[in-house]
Amino acid sequence: MNVPDRRGSLPLPTIRRYPAYLRLIKERMACGDDEISSAALAEALGIDPVLARKDIAMMGIPGRPRRGFPARELVAAITRALGWDNTTDAALVGCGSLGHALAGYRGFIEQHLSIVVAFDTNPELQGQSVHGVRVQTMSEIRRIVRRMRIKLGILTVPDSAAQECADELVAAGVEGIWNFSSVNLAVPPGVIVQNVDLAQSLAVLSHAIARR
Amino acid sequence: MNVPDRRGSLPLPTIRRYPAYLRLIKERMACGDDEISSAALAEALGIDPVLARKDIAMMGIPGRPRRGFPARELVAAITRALGWDNTTDAALVGCGSLGHALAGYRGFIEQHLSIVVAFDTNPELQGQSVHGVRVQTMSEIRRIVRRMRIKLGILTVPDSAAQECADELVAAGVEGIWNFSSVNLAVPPGVIVQNVDLAQSLAVLSHAIARR
Repeated sequence: MNVPDRRGSLPLPTIRRYPAYLRLIKERMACGDDEISSAALAEALGIDPVLARKDIAMMGIPGRPRRGFPARELVAAITRALGWDNTTDAALVGCGSLGHALAGYRGFIEQHLSIVVAFDTNPELQGQSVHGVRVQTMSEIRRIVRRMRIKLGILTVPDSAAQECADELVAAGVEGIWNFSSVNLAVPPGVIVQNVDLAQSLAVLSHAIARR
Repeated sequence: MNVPDRRGSLPLPTIRRYPAYLRLIKERMACGDDEISSAALAEALGIDPVLARKDIAMMGIPGRPRRGFPARELVAAITRALGWDNTTDAALVGCGSLGHALAGYRGFIEQHLSIVVAFDTNPELQGQSVHGVRVQTMSEIRRIVRRMRIKLGILTVPDSAAQECADELVAAGVEGIWNFSSVNLAVPPGVIVQNVDLAQSLAVLSHAIARR
């Protein structure tokens, strides 16, 4: 199968929509479909059909009029564009309630993310395993993450410890930090930070409901 | 304690920063501080001090030059602005891996969010309890959510079921939906949707790392 390599040139909004396309195409394949149209993807996700058509066109796979795109080729191309053709090893920093939940979240398997080591300050957790992942002391971040050549850190520590832990991850050579704290992390230009702040997101909702 | 009521007029970026301020102020109070400056908050969160000063000023609580704001009054005012002075009951729709994780996430206690009922299609889960929350069948959403007067729905179902479940929640009278699916939900104007798409967020990171 000749899969074009479009890893270098994708706009951010397109990348954000790819995981949803990928899931839907796989669902359709499981139902026996071997072709899928961008219009069907747009409808299922409630997005503009023009956007979906452009997103899919970027994969460079020829479609057939009134039929759609070959599902298998599309899955392979999107998977490759997302870097999900190889499993990404990740280090989880912070094994509190949220860290625990993420360590046990099976959705990451589909996205080829594998949490291979965890760190926590709690001495009771150290040496234990959380959902099959061994917990190490914080002081070992730099040594272990570097040795294991881990490129992705997942930060689920309290805000007060976030920058310090991010500094350790950066010193260990990670290229990306998935930041679940509320802190606006300072990192060198080569490191990508992606923020997910659940408290912030919930605040917007509950403020709006409280106003009623 | 005379706490101004500023629930009606807050800009969205300010609301998003409030949970982080709240946590930090409580941390300082636990260390014995009874006053806190907006500059200290800005520094701890890595944000512009001018922003923090404006955010705090919106609470309408007088501060003292070179000392700061009274911590207790600030906590009360922010808590009230966020609607966190009363516990918000929520319905969890979808008890897969992510739903399980959220049901067990203790961080919600701090935000006065209480998941009081859960729904799932899996007959094996029905009647069971997930982290102390009873799981009901999907067909009961409308009846139970309405009867319990729940105003917030947390949506953790597969994309293919998201719109349908959202419709049920809306019909049951919820005012806000916390949407963890990738679907762009269609809801009536009075209902607020707040999206958290973990796959989307991770896609941006892994695409960037894969390009290296």
